[in-house]
Amino acid sequence: MNALGTHLLLELRQCNPRLLDDLEFVKETMIAAAEFMDAQIIGESFHRFNPQGVTGVLSIAESHLSIHTWPELDYAAADIFTCGASFQPQAAAQIIIDRMESKDPSIQIIKRGIEAPASVARS
Amino acid sequence: MNALGTHLLLELRQCNPRLLDDLEFVKETMIAAAEFMDAQIIGESFHRFNPQGVTGVLSIAESHLSIHTWPELDYAAADIFTCGASFQPQAAAQIIIDRMESKDPSIQIIKRGIEAPASVARS
Repeated sequence: MNALGTHLLLELRQCNPRLLDDLEFVKETMIAAAEFMDAQIIGESFHRFNPQGVTGVLSIAESHLSIHTWPELDYAAADIFTCGASFQPQAAAQIIIDRMESKDPSIQIIKRGIEAPASVARS
Repeated sequence: MNALGTHLLLELRQCNPRLLDDLEFVKETMIAAAEFMDAQIIGESFHRFNPQGVTGVLSIAESHLSIHTWPELDYAAADIFTCGASFQPQAAAQIIIDRMESKDPSIQIIKRGIEAPASVARS
């Protein structure tokens, strides 16, 4: 596959629910992850739901970071989609894992690009 | 797996490059996909790069939609991440495929949630 980008899908289980529900903390976390990668932030959208939960997206020149939290389940889903070989998205993912205090995280790594991976049938 | 959300990853190959480079058209496309699903849009960030390419993210109450385009490669990567069983993300994906005139699209469907799928090792 001729990958243009690397997309990390983080399943953050057993997080600290207080942190997952803190809009400013979540926002600072995602900005810290982006800045760690020297990504250029070009847009943002963060929102806290009532009664609980935060959703946030950072647009970066090199694609995006996103997070959606469910404090009532101690869970968050986060994405780091970057283009360019100079980034270290897995180290940025670790920042998010550590700050959310996830005790049971997992990461799927998916290459995005112009040729289909072998496992995906062409239509 | 106890899925909270459905995440569609679209690889849009062989698109119309003129459309991929048209910020307003891309934005209208993503809003049309969100509105088709009756998703509640709570934030947005769209940007056109120089010399080419568009990146856009729609935050919705039910997670997010994103797109990143490479007109020079006739390619775009789009995501539709929704929570709740009432949505029809695959039909929304088809709207994006059709409007970008992709002749070679593929979709990966990934369940997001609080339990790890069998294929993902727990740490």
